[in-house]
Amino acid sequence: MNCLFKEERSYDIKVLDCTIRDGGLVNNFHFTHEFVKAAYNTAIISGVDYFEIGKIVSPTLMSTKEFGPWNFCNESDLRKIVDNKQSKMKIAVMADIGRTLKEEILPKKESVIDLIRVACYIHQIDEAIEIVEDSHKKGYETSINLMAVSKISEEELDGFLSRVSKSNVDIIYIVDSFGTFHSREIRLLVNKYLTATKNNGKKLGIHAHNNQQLAYSNTIESMDLGVTFIDATIAGLGRGAGNCPLELLFGYLKNSDYYIFPVLKFIREHITELKNQISWGYDIPYMLTGQFNQHPKTAISFNKEGKTDYTQLYDDLMVVSV
Amino acid sequence: MNCLFKEERSYDIKVLDCTIRDGGLVNNFHFTHEFVKAAYNTAIISGVDYFEIGKIVSPTLMSTKEFGPWNFCNESDLRKIVDNKQSKMKIAVMADIGRTLKEEILPKKESVIDLIRVACYIHQIDEAIEIVEDSHKKGYETSINLMAVSKISEEELDGFLSRVSKSNVDIIYIVDSFGTFHSREIRLLVNKYLTATKNNGKKLGIHAHNNQQLAYSNTIESMDLGVTFIDATIAGLGRGAGNCPLELLFGYLKNSDYYIFPVLKFIREHITELKNQISWGYDIPYMLTGQFNQHPKTAISFNKEGKTDYTQLYDDLMVVSV
Repeated sequence: MNCLFKEERSYDIKVLDCTIRDGGLVNNFHFTHEFVKAAYNTAIISGVDYFEIGKIVSPTLMSTKEFGPWNFCNESDLRKIVDNKQSKMKIAVMADIGRTLKEEILPKKESVIDLIRVACYIHQIDEAIEIVEDSHKKGYETSINLMAVSKISEEELDGFLSRVSKSNVDIIYIVDSFGTFHSREIRLLVNKYLTATKNNGKKLGIHAHNNQQLAYSNTIESMDLGVTFIDATIAGLGRGAGNCPLELLFGYLKNSDYYIFPVLKFIREHITELKNQISWGYDIPYMLTGQFNQHPKTAISFNKEGKTDYTQLYDDLMVVSV
Repeated sequence: MNCLFKEERSYDIKVLDCTIRDGGLVNNFHFTHEFVKAAYNTAIISGVDYFEIGKIVSPTLMSTKEFGPWNFCNESDLRKIVDNKQSKMKIAVMADIGRTLKEEILPKKESVIDLIRVACYIHQIDEAIEIVEDSHKKGYETSINLMAVSKISEEELDGFLSRVSKSNVDIIYIVDSFGTFHSREIRLLVNKYLTATKNNGKKLGIHAHNNQQLAYSNTIESMDLGVTFIDATIAGLGRGAGNCPLELLFGYLKNSDYYIFPVLKFIREHITELKNQISWGYDIPYMLTGQFNQHPKTAISFNKEGKTDYTQLYDDLMVVSV
C-alpha cells in the first residue's frame, strides 16, 4: 500500500478463473489430471467464485485423440476433479457455436456444472441465444461472450446488446479477444455495455488479453466502473499473449476474501514446469497483432516457426489491416 | 485500429528514451560501444526527442573499473556517440545526489548534453535544487525526478511541489520507482502535480516501472491527462521489472512523427542477444515488491540466488511492510 491516497476500495464481484479453459487453447487441453486438480484446489482455497474447467464440445465433432478431456468436459471426467462438496465455488464451461450440441448438455440437476458461457462472433448471435435459452431452461446460469468486438461497428454492437438484453442470459461479457483496446477505449466500451444493461438486470463481465500489457489494467478499470464478473488466469496462462494474471488481480483486491498465497504456491509447483513445455505471454509478435487489431494466429505461427524478423511481421500485418 | 470509437488523438509531447541509463542499472553500464551507438541511431530515426545516455557521476566517487563509461558520461566518451549534427534529438544525463559533483559539470556550450535530470529522494531536495540551479545557470534544461513518491505523505509531497515550483527547474517528473501505483492512483497523483504546476510554467514528466504490468498503462493515462515528458525504454530495458516499453508507446502514437519500425529492428538485432546476458522485466518477485510498495532490491537478490519460493518472499515482504 502506498502512503499517498489511502483509500478503501471494496467490490461486489465474482472472480472467474479460466486457467484451464483459456490455457487449454495453448496445449489442446492436454493437462495432466494432477495439474487440473491442483488448479481446482488452488481456486477453492484462494476464494475464486467460478472455475472454468474447459469447453463443452461434442466428441462427435472434434477428435478426442487430438484434444484432451477438458475440450469436451463429459460429466464423468468432471466428477474426477469436482469432488469438494463443501466448496461454494461454482463450475463453468464454455460452449462453442457449431461445436457444442445443446442436445448433449445434461439437465443442471444431473451435472456439476453451474454456468455455461457461450462464446460467439457477431454473425452467430442466433445460435448463441439458442444455446443460452436451452441451458437456461435446463437450470444453468448463462453468459454470452461476444468475441472480437473490436472488429465490429458501433451499430452492430448496439444491435447485439439490444438482442441479448431481451434474452434470458444472466451475464454479458466484454471480450477483448485481440488485446487491442487501450484504457480509454475500454472505458468507452464498458460504459456502452453498462448503459445497455442498466435497466434489465444483466450482469457484465470482462475478459481481457495481454497483447499490449493491458489485460490487468483494463480489467481493474472495468471493475472500477461496475463490471462484476472478472476473468483471470494463473500466471496469465492463455492463448497467445495470455490473460489477466490472477496474482495481479488478487494484489489489487488486498484485504478482501481473495488470497494470493495459494496462487503463488501453484505457480512455483506447476507453472514453472509448464513454462518449459508450452509458451504463452506478452512478446513482440503478440504486441503487433494487438496493435493491428488482428487475431493472434499470425503471431502464433511466427513464433512456432522460430522467426524473429519483427519488421517483416509488421509489414505483413499492415498489409492485412489496411 | 479497432472499428469502434475511431477517435483522432494528438499529443504535444516529448519522448525521452532512457534505455541506456535505466538499462545501465542492470549491468553497471557495461554496454558495448556498438550497442549504445545503435540505440542512439535508433532513437534518432524513430523520432525520439531526448536520449538519456547515462548518469553523470564523478569518477572520483565510483569505480571506473566496476562501472562502465555511461555511469560517468565524460565529454569525450559522449562525443564518440553523439556525432549526428543534423539531428534535432537532445541528449540527457541523470545526476545523482551525493555522487554527482556539480563542479565537474561543464558549461552547456562546452558539452553535447542538453538536459540534466536530477534524481532525488524527499530528504535530498536541497541538494537537488542546488544542482538544478547550477545547471540552469550553466545553460542546461533541467528536471527533478522525485523517487519513491509512493513512500511519502501527501503533506511531504505538497511541500516538495511548492519548493520545486519556486526553483528554475523546467520539468518535474512523476516517478513510480517501485511500480506500485494502480491506474486510479496514478490519475490522482498526476492531477496533484498538474494542479501544483498549472500557473508556474513547469512541465510534467512520467517515469513508470513495470512491476504490476502497469508501466505502459500508467504512462498513457498520464499522457492523456496532460503530462508531456514521456519516459520509455526499448523492450522495457531497465532495473527490475523494467520501464514502459518504447514499442508499446509508439503503437499508441500511431499516425504521429514517431516510428516503431527502427525500434523493432533494434530489438531483433540487439535485445534478443542481450536477453541471453542479463535479465529484466516483469516476473513474480518484482510483482510482489510492487504490490508491497517496496524497493525491487529484495526481488533482485531473490532472482540472483535462483530462488523460487514465492510464498516465502511474500511473507518476508509482508513483515517489512507492516
